[in-house]
Amino acid sequence: MSGPDFAARRNKLIRSLKPTGISALLVSSESNVRYLTGFTGDSSWLYVTRGATVLISDSRYSTQITDECPELDAEIIGVGKSMSEATAMVVKTTGSTQLGVEGNHLTVAQHAALIQKIDSANLVVTDGLTERLRVIKDQWEIAEIRQAVYQAERGIAVTRARLRTEQTETEIRFDLEASMRHFGAAGPAFEPVVGIGPTAALPHAHAGHRRVDESPLLLIDWGAQTATGYRSDLTRVLFTGRITKKMQRVYTTVLAAQQAAIRSIQPGAVCKDVDAVARGIIAAAGYGRKFGHGLGHGIGLDIHEAVRLGPQSEKTLKPGMIVTVEPGIYLAGRFGVRIEDDVLVTRDGYEVLTSVPREFDDAIVEFLA
Amino acid sequence: MSGPDFAARRNKLIRSLKPTGISALLVSSESNVRYLTGFTGDSSWLYVTRGATVLISDSRYSTQITDECPELDAEIIGVGKSMSEATAMVVKTTGSTQLGVEGNHLTVAQHAALIQKIDSANLVVTDGLTERLRVIKDQWEIAEIRQAVYQAERGIAVTRARLRTEQTETEIRFDLEASMRHFGAAGPAFEPVVGIGPTAALPHAHAGHRRVDESPLLLIDWGAQTATGYRSDLTRVLFTGRITKKMQRVYTTVLAAQQAAIRSIQPGAVCKDVDAVARGIIAAAGYGRKFGHGLGHGIGLDIHEAVRLGPQSEKTLKPGMIVTVEPGIYLAGRFGVRIEDDVLVTRDGYEVLTSVPREFDDAIVEFLA
Repeated sequence: MSGPDFAARRNKLIRSLKPTGISALLVSSESNVRYLTGFTGDSSWLYVTRGATVLISDSRYSTQITDECPELDAEIIGVGKSMSEATAMVVKTTGSTQLGVEGNHLTVAQHAALIQKIDSANLVVTDGLTERLRVIKDQWEIAEIRQAVYQAERGIAVTRARLRTEQTETEIRFDLEASMRHFGAAGPAFEPVVGIGPTAALPHAHAGHRRVDESPLLLIDWGAQTATGYRSDLTRVLFTGRITKKMQRVYTTVLAAQQAAIRSIQPGAVCKDVDAVARGIIAAAGYGRKFGHGLGHGIGLDIHEAVRLGPQSEKTLKPGMIVTVEPGIYLAGRFGVRIEDDVLVTRDGYEVLTSVPREFDDAIVEFLA
Repeated sequence: MSGPDFAARRNKLIRSLKPTGISALLVSSESNVRYLTGFTGDSSWLYVTRGATVLISDSRYSTQITDECPELDAEIIGVGKSMSEATAMVVKTTGSTQLGVEGNHLTVAQHAALIQKIDSANLVVTDGLTERLRVIKDQWEIAEIRQAVYQAERGIAVTRARLRTEQTETEIRFDLEASMRHFGAAGPAFEPVVGIGPTAALPHAHAGHRRVDESPLLLIDWGAQTATGYRSDLTRVLFTGRITKKMQRVYTTVLAAQQAAIRSIQPGAVCKDVDAVARGIIAAAGYGRKFGHGLGHGIGLDIHEAVRLGPQSEKTLKPGMIVTVEPGIYLAGRFGVRIEDDVLVTRDGYEVLTSVPREFDDAIVEFLA
């Protein structure tokens, strides 16, 4: 498969500007810049209009820009000059008078500096224009995310095979990162959450120093990032010792909620309705107040992107969206269970991209439990 | 040494508000929140005023907040509610009418949402109030950064000892991360730059697939992050084969520039003058246009923080500041040299916190070269 057509993406973006009256857009989000150009550096802004595409960056990146984006013009900021000064010059040169900026990325201070330096154009705050394109993944992106899933799944299999009772959360996390890199991942998609027992009740706990043998329950929330920046995101619970009836009941409740929610995914489904399927099952089991986060989120170049599966999300699912489905039940001070898979919305339903076994019996690590 | 006194830091911040007429500050930067509370999570804002300190967060973090900041009030955002709605409620309850927000962290969209939701207070954009406190490190912070230096230095010694000609940039990077963790680092301070030959000419290149034996020059820019989030930042060049006269000349030029700049560090020295010392030596050697970045920057909870050592920086150095000193010469397509150390400004001069050997002879890896 050939690589992404960045020029086509930029043209689509420019076409989407038409109804807004904006003639040029200043893209300051690193992921949006990467999506529109393939440039993998940071601290660089993209100025895009019908006649010109300019990457505004500094001398650290001049060679890299030539290598990665030979078709783009680059404006290299001189030492001691500011990003807003360089931007003002580019805007003036191209003659755009209505300049869109990204309200959800630009800081208040950056916005103020641009207003001060740019006198040839009016600044218009926009909201998620590039993100709106990114929400639907093309074939190349879907293949990249499949690759990120592959790297994550091969990685966890190795880490599971290597589990020892004396390992700590931090050691497991690091082992998992190494295992994913072994299969070609550029790195983890995010800092993996590795929680043993009570730590698993903290949905975003950092890995600490609890040992595997301190509890029979181990939760791992992890993913891989491919060389091009696409990400996967999974969660599994492993049982590494004698578990309680309650643990089993919580596990099977979460799994039932997750599977039902996945089955409700199809084009046209409203995000909050998918969330409600899982939330209803968990509430019916008496754990409604123990599921305090949304059901899932889009993945791609960012680990959290549009759309959100949450109780307030009125958006509808469309083919090409890829979302996580990750209900959880958290019993503070005791344990938590979350099960998470990545799901592609297809033309006639869904495809679960992730395949690490998730049945209750699969969660039992036989050689430890 | 006992831990940091977060309440004292907050009191200092509140006192600094007085001349501005602001009665309360909304802190949205993750590092600033950590500095003022010790909380290690993300996506959480701190509301601080004379009578109240409230951490506004979501249910993922409620247990963690109780553990890490038992003295703080927490406002947990309900599922489907927004950060700005929760903030509006907190502001209303405490009765502050002039609320400062962080212009250099809050996005334009977040600012707009706050303006829309908060009707009981006037929003005032502030610039770096907490950062101004963070620039001077206290004894506890200096000890933490020494620890981050220790982890980085023990780590590189292991990685250097393990170097093999067939290793790639990516493998070296990963080896170095593992080595630093072995000495207690929570992780790397940033994604290490590992550049072989021409890659070393890209000041912020990501590690790729070049092998050690593709060039006699290997540049590593790395640091460690302690469990409490403090960082170190170093760069060394290693010679792993037969080098050219030009490489040696560039190396000794950069080293002379760096050492002279370090010797000029003392309380009262103006940042741009320190930068000029290094820049002058590099220019005199004929490489003025090959040093395209500032001389250095503060380190702490962030890898780049105030102050900046650059040609435009009028700030003066004060005891307790810790800055990097890192001149470089980059010859596109061929190689680059940068040498970087971390320097504490003391009452009567400076102390170099880093001690990895940096003389030309030290750079030669005998068993490979």
